[in-house]
Amino acid sequence: MLDFENWTCPVPLRDTPAVVMGHGGGGAMSGELVEHLFLPAYGSSPSELTDSAVLPFPGGRLALSTDSYVVKPMFFPGGSIGDLAVNGTVNDLAMSGSQPLYLSTAFIVQEGTLLADLGRIASAIGAAARAAGVQLVTGDTKVVDNGSGDGVFVNTTGVGVVAPGVDIRPTRAAPGDAVLISGDIGVHGVAVMSVRAGLEFDTGVTSDTAPLHGLVADILATDVPVHVLRDPTRGGVAASLNEIARAAQVGISLVERDLPVPAAVADACSLLGLDPLQVANEGKLLAFVPEAGADAVLAAMRDHPYGRGARRIGACTADHPGTVVARTALGGTRVVTMPIGEQLPRIC
Amino acid sequence: MLDFENWTCPVPLRDTPAVVMGHGGGGAMSGELVEHLFLPAYGSSPSELTDSAVLPFPGGRLALSTDSYVVKPMFFPGGSIGDLAVNGTVNDLAMSGSQPLYLSTAFIVQEGTLLADLGRIASAIGAAARAAGVQLVTGDTKVVDNGSGDGVFVNTTGVGVVAPGVDIRPTRAAPGDAVLISGDIGVHGVAVMSVRAGLEFDTGVTSDTAPLHGLVADILATDVPVHVLRDPTRGGVAASLNEIARAAQVGISLVERDLPVPAAVADACSLLGLDPLQVANEGKLLAFVPEAGADAVLAAMRDHPYGRGARRIGACTADHPGTVVARTALGGTRVVTMPIGEQLPRIC
Repeated sequence: MLDFENWTCPVPLRDTPAVVMGHGGGGAMSGELVEHLFLPAYGSSPSELTDSAVLPFPGGRLALSTDSYVVKPMFFPGGSIGDLAVNGTVNDLAMSGSQPLYLSTAFIVQEGTLLADLGRIASAIGAAARAAGVQLVTGDTKVVDNGSGDGVFVNTTGVGVVAPGVDIRPTRAAPGDAVLISGDIGVHGVAVMSVRAGLEFDTGVTSDTAPLHGLVADILATDVPVHVLRDPTRGGVAASLNEIARAAQVGISLVERDLPVPAAVADACSLLGLDPLQVANEGKLLAFVPEAGADAVLAAMRDHPYGRGARRIGACTADHPGTVVARTALGGTRVVTMPIGEQLPRIC
Repeated sequence: MLDFENWTCPVPLRDTPAVVMGHGGGGAMSGELVEHLFLPAYGSSPSELTDSAVLPFPGGRLALSTDSYVVKPMFFPGGSIGDLAVNGTVNDLAMSGSQPLYLSTAFIVQEGTLLADLGRIASAIGAAARAAGVQLVTGDTKVVDNGSGDGVFVNTTGVGVVAPGVDIRPTRAAPGDAVLISGDIGVHGVAVMSVRAGLEFDTGVTSDTAPLHGLVADILATDVPVHVLRDPTRGGVAASLNEIARAAQVGISLVERDLPVPAAVADACSLLGLDPLQVANEGKLLAFVPEAGADAVLAAMRDHPYGRGARRIGACTADHPGTVVARTALGGTRVVTMPIGEQLPRIC
């Protein structure tokens, strides 16, 4: 156990004695915080970086996943922090192949927040839970003084049931897998940034926030052995693919021109100096399936409302294990790096 | 469904258009927020006010409980926000008679928080989880900018397994039940307030934060049919007993001189103008058991390290349903009211 009473930060934490925004960005710094601070402090060995834990429970297996939502602003084109809080946790559960059943909701509300705003958020949570078919079963509300919070922060934690035989996790990615995406990327991040105070611009882009467990059920119904599912939220497709490549020690090759980046997202990213591969999605999933089953899975995805834009974007290789590369439009190859810190703070 | 777009607050929310500290105090205003805002927004019917939800799961029943912790300061005599975050959720699970198995931890960290402080909190969480025998299985970290948070907020959500036949909940309180407490009251609240900035005073009181599921297991092993268990945290014994009296529509009569209030707590409460019955506890439980079994349960509690100071403090009656009264030292009777708002802000 580390002695935090007399502790100095190890070099991987970027030589800072204090938390910086990048530690919450879902990229390399977030990973370092887990590896160098939380795991030693918890006395845990590094486990797989899955979106939800799959655990034994009398009579079967359950999946458990938690996320706190601090998106700013709380209302944005296409949704609100309430929609994200339900769909984000539903999706994390779905990415382990589990069927989401129950959600808890816990609020940290800043004193002075309008009750009407809290009510709108709670209504969005209720509506999203009904749409996803999950039950809101327990909750908590704390209030903090002015200056100690920012509107409403919401934690949702979800429980799902994992069917016998289902085994979907990052380390199962294997050379020969096709890498599929369920639709356009970068949409959520651009939608939120377009209404961020001080940065308003008009894109017409609305958040893709959506519950994906129905899409996952349709994918599993193909009987193709799915190896990995992942929703590329904070840190975008780049962070998710890098985590999978490292966890499974496989290479991943993308074809840049196959990436579905809507024109409005490409324009906004160019304006803001962002890489669409690093921008958050809230209603998309990546699927790794054996190439022989890829067409069947793509067809199933395209038959679902949340998978209409599904396409193959790359493949898993035995070459360059742990590294993600992209073939560029000009015929060259570039490394798709893990984002370091926080490209878009408070995006979810 | 309420129309929160064109919403004005109903009178029970105290005629304020905005959230105030009292909405997070665990008293009447917290209850109103649940009843008039969250339940309508979620489309739920008012359910029982239990500390954890007991839910069907393939093969049995699980308990799910969530709490966010915003205690200020984060370190206090006898513990830290990390200890509270583990023990508080373990205790909420234990109060439904479940055996806690798994915890998630989700952090909202203010930019600029010292990594060493975050590490000390994470270490406390790790140590408390080992002491309680629960597994930390999944987590999340978000960072918010300076001015949008206050150090570290932690959410823990726990899953427990409920043994067949166990049925412990507030509505089971019945006339003829003895009301027992596991030890001294008011300790945690006074310990935190004694180091609150601007209010420092020297009491020697340390927080009673402790995991109570072992004590609950010993109580259940007596085979006395336990009706209700409750840990009187925010809002103290007064809030817990009022909630139980209302839920079960029973009266509760306390004997004031039987309440175990340590001298240092009594002195601090007098100094601060507080009622010890309304001060938070983090390592105590209330048990409602049929009078015939009370001595056996008291004996079992006193044999456990966290129940040494257990005693009978009152009884459940058919008189004055929904109301808690206390016989005073002078022989009179007073009503023990539900706290309205927030006596001690950010106590857990």
